[in-house]
Amino acid sequence: MPSLQPGQLLARGVVRHLASLGMVCIEEFTPERGKRVDVMAMGPKGEIWVVECKSSRADFMADGKWQGYLEWCDRYFWAVDEAFPTDLLPEGTGLIIGDAYDAEVLRMAPEEKLAAARRKAVTRRFATHAARRLMAARDPGVQTEVG
Amino acid sequence: MPSLQPGQLLARGVVRHLASLGMVCIEEFTPERGKRVDVMAMGPKGEIWVVECKSSRADFMADGKWQGYLEWCDRYFWAVDEAFPTDLLPEGTGLIIGDAYDAEVLRMAPEEKLAAARRKAVTRRFATHAARRLMAARDPGVQTEVG
Repeated sequence: MPSLQPGQLLARGVVRHLASLGMVCIEEFTPERGKRVDVMAMGPKGEIWVVECKSSRADFMADGKWQGYLEWCDRYFWAVDEAFPTDLLPEGTGLIIGDAYDAEVLRMAPEEKLAAARRKAVTRRFATHAARRLMAARDPGVQTEVG
Repeated sequence: MPSLQPGQLLARGVVRHLASLGMVCIEEFTPERGKRVDVMAMGPKGEIWVVECKSSRADFMADGKWQGYLEWCDRYFWAVDEAFPTDLLPEGTGLIIGDAYDAEVLRMAPEEKLAAARRKAVTRRFATHAARRLMAARDPGVQTEVG
């Protein structure tokens, strides 16, 4: 396995936990050009969660984009490790504490339901990204633009 | 790579061709319990194709389930190799000729558009399957039921 950055290790623990809740996840998902979320998760009823993983205070402070992700999900979470100063995190967002191996939802994010057309577009894009990456992993001979 | 059956090799060529058309594919997709299609493909506009891959006349004759797949797609295709007696294939279906490396659509399948609710369900299931398999491939430590 290539060595992972701290934020990616945290994302791995988050994905493991969300999987245990019956959700499926894509890491480093691009909902639209210029935006990239750390973890995009889809639940059994089609609910969409975004989780931004912050490995440090500096990592969090440097993020000027997170509010642009709210419109792409039903619930928005931060994932941080136990040492993170969680008082920094804005109200009205969810909180996940984790490490490279597992995670836990400490504070559920409030729900802001996606409009039907947006949910349809996100779901299709989620399907497309996951399948493209899977195709490339299964068969190096396949030509896909991994988005 | 584990050694693939003739039908799986054909599926690989089909997937490569569909990818070149901008579609994404999942092999051995289960639209509902008891049904498993060889290739489920999704196009850029969300269109859903099913492709059943038949490596021989006997393989085709043994298939008593294919009509049950029509309700899961907008277009239904058979994929066979060049030696296959294509006169056997039922009317009103599409035809793809291929091998393990590539394929070509010889006859476009007629379109029978999925109802909106069914398309939504299939798209979500497609997303879930692709993401689950991708998660399992990326991280052996993740617990998912691969469906």
